[in-house]
Amino acid sequence: MKIPPVKGTRDFYPQDMARRNWIIDGWKKVSVRNGFEEYDGPIFEYLKMFQIKSGDEIVEQLFSFQDRGGRDLALRPEITPTLARMVNQQINSLPKPIKWFSVPRLFRAERPQKGRLREFFQWNIDIISEDDVLADAEIIFTTIDYLQEVGLSSKDVKVKMSSRKLLVAVLKNIGIPESKHDVLYTVLDKKSKIPPETFRDVLDEQVKDSEKAAKIEAFMELDSITKVEKMFSHDDEVVMANDELAEVRHHLDQMGVADYCVFDPSIVRGLAYYTGVVFEVHDVVGDLRAICGGGRYDNLLHDFGGPQVPATGMGMGDCVLEILLEKKGLIDKNLPEKRLDYFVATVDKPINIETVDGIVKKTEKDIVIQLTANLRLAGYSAAFSYKSGGLGKQLKEASEQKAKKCIIIGDEFKENKLAVKDMETGKQVLVDYDKFLSDLMS
Amino acid sequence: MKIPPVKGTRDFYPQDMARRNWIIDGWKKVSVRNGFEEYDGPIFEYLKMFQIKSGDEIVEQLFSFQDRGGRDLALRPEITPTLARMVNQQINSLPKPIKWFSVPRLFRAERPQKGRLREFFQWNIDIISEDDVLADAEIIFTTIDYLQEVGLSSKDVKVKMSSRKLLVAVLKNIGIPESKHDVLYTVLDKKSKIPPETFRDVLDEQVKDSEKAAKIEAFMELDSITKVEKMFSHDDEVVMANDELAEVRHHLDQMGVADYCVFDPSIVRGLAYYTGVVFEVHDVVGDLRAICGGGRYDNLLHDFGGPQVPATGMGMGDCVLEILLEKKGLIDKNLPEKRLDYFVATVDKPINIETVDGIVKKTEKDIVIQLTANLRLAGYSAAFSYKSGGLGKQLKEASEQKAKKCIIIGDEFKENKLAVKDMETGKQVLVDYDKFLSDLMS
Repeated sequence: MKIPPVKGTRDFYPQDMARRNWIIDGWKKVSVRNGFEEYDGPIFEYLKMFQIKSGDEIVEQLFSFQDRGGRDLALRPEITPTLARMVNQQINSLPKPIKWFSVPRLFRAERPQKGRLREFFQWNIDIISEDDVLADAEIIFTTIDYLQEVGLSSKDVKVKMSSRKLLVAVLKNIGIPESKHDVLYTVLDKKSKIPPETFRDVLDEQVKDSEKAAKIEAFMELDSITKVEKMFSHDDEVVMANDELAEVRHHLDQMGVADYCVFDPSIVRGLAYYTGVVFEVHDVVGDLRAICGGGRYDNLLHDFGGPQVPATGMGMGDCVLEILLEKKGLIDKNLPEKRLDYFVATVDKPINIETVDGIVKKTEKDIVIQLTANLRLAGYSAAFSYKSGGLGKQLKEASEQKAKKCIIIGDEFKENKLAVKDMETGKQVLVDYDKFLSDLMS
Repeated sequence: MKIPPVKGTRDFYPQDMARRNWIIDGWKKVSVRNGFEEYDGPIFEYLKMFQIKSGDEIVEQLFSFQDRGGRDLALRPEITPTLARMVNQQINSLPKPIKWFSVPRLFRAERPQKGRLREFFQWNIDIISEDDVLADAEIIFTTIDYLQEVGLSSKDVKVKMSSRKLLVAVLKNIGIPESKHDVLYTVLDKKSKIPPETFRDVLDEQVKDSEKAAKIEAFMELDSITKVEKMFSHDDEVVMANDELAEVRHHLDQMGVADYCVFDPSIVRGLAYYTGVVFEVHDVVGDLRAICGGGRYDNLLHDFGGPQVPATGMGMGDCVLEILLEKKGLIDKNLPEKRLDYFVATVDKPINIETVDGIVKKTEKDIVIQLTANLRLAGYSAAFSYKSGGLGKQLKEASEQKAKKCIIIGDEFKENKLAVKDMETGKQVLVDYDKFLSDLMS
């Protein structure tokens, strides 16, 4: 019975797994050097937990099911709700600030598209209980540290930054009532994803006053904080939000990564829960979805039944990232080379070996097996051939596996000697078998 | 709104995550040095895929659901069906033998018990397309290599080995028709898990002839291959199966791990799909479930719609293993020490710094941020304090984070000098800031 894999999922054959591990190991390495500690939660949680942050619409994008006790559960589409739950559970005992990262596997019941699968990995970094915008800068810096690590320069990708506070201040200044804001976030967030006419239609639907709509559009086109300040110079709230963005920018400047960063007021992030700096990373060519997004969310822990605690974070999926890295030719050349420490070969003849108990007939295969096992127990990667080919074939197999050294059990073994061949220099030396073994064990 | 985690799942706070990573990294390291390549599949597959190997009973133990297209899917309770599917898909192009490992997250809709959760990790190693029992020995060796790596000696754990071929030959010899064998595997597998009287009742129910039942029981008590040979000496099939076990034993002897291994005919493995050597690892005290189990399964790929290809493998979950390691005190002392390369501190005064563009007022905090960022970009782990405490408090924080070195931005910074304190020796040296930065970048 032949059964196919489920659409939108991936099989990771060893060569695919090597790529996945390289991406995830990079995320982990950069997180650790930036002072984040790893956490994880369950793959499934109570369904209602995912509705708190993202509303009822999220339910359609969830793989949900009931357990035998009739509880409504769902595969996690994101890890932030779990993060909020876990931090709330131990809020008083956790050292502050909480700097945590995770690389969860996530699930969305969507129609698979380019860069969007039903099962994917996402790097998450979060700083909780710190309201200084330095934390926002550190989140953005850590993101850039990774991009730089894998070879994506400021010519390849840009961090587009804005501020939800700024947007709120601007909308209020233009005269949009706060009750309308949440709906507008979703609309404005679509600007770069839909044709300009469609965007205008959707905006007009929400903002009937065409002068106000035009002002919103004009704001979203501004390409510097200075221009925003000019447009809304007498509004203290706008000025304050601008100053905050300028401070983040100053930190990023100090950090040496300002060339990656641009101000872009069209960055909104659809969800209502953002409260301060927001950002997305896009490829400069611009034909892909956002590589990642994040921002400040000071109310989320409270929404999950905890105290009011400031927080800021970022999430980066592996699908769009991998497409971009592939396009730039940055994966294959960066994959760590897989090398074998020792390949153990034999010239294929049985050998009589004297032991303390008398004459025991051992085959060369026995020695190959013994030696390979001892090398492995001592921590070396070691292999032998299951095939019964001659020495030439075995040496070829050793080369294919990129062995650093090849040990040959040959005629010299009668004198208890192994031939150890350096596969790079081709040099071969004879070593005493017992000494070799005892050196391994020490 | 406060929502609890789902019963039978785990939250991995950083200290839990460190333990999980240590276990999984150990599995990965040992797999690689034994020549296995990593693979993985999707978290969910078509429900029917899991019924092929384990029958309809498995459905009750699955978290199953429908996607929007009405397809019946399930969270994977094991990875072997996925392995069979993936190998079958590329059977002609994969180099042989296929030696693969995986550390999948798996799911079972059971009532959580000690050592049995609804969500867990499992190490899997498999050798496919090799019928030599050397492959069985290599699977067992790799398992022991890991046990030894984490400090479990042959005094702590035993590999109990038997053979499905032997059991089949014995049952046939006793006169049990082959049509009864599959049911008996499940019954005999329970022997060590239920009271002797209960076992006898269940056995009698399946084997009405009490003489035959007694013979089966007697066989299951034999503690050496020699005794089996004595009991069934004229049966060629028994002798052949015994010889195969002796060969595996000989290999394990050569490999230097025979002290871990014992013959135990009560090891049956419940599932029908095993075809040769079978084994389980148990703690010597014996109050835990099996730590792992495995064996040869030469028909599985064929059952999944592929060709007849020999295969042998092992699966080890993380739950029982962790309980045992904890009991033996082997986790905390083996966890890799988390150390910080640099902590960057400041004596907390603003400093005027001359730049090429004239006098620019930079705060010490700016320097801290700049330095930390540069250290991280250069690949070092580095931290600073978000709190505005004095130098003493910062040094304490540096100690808590086990910093190897602490850089202090102090009065000497007026002369462009940093104080670098070795946190182990307490020694402090002054270094030129610009040179320090340029050395980092080179």
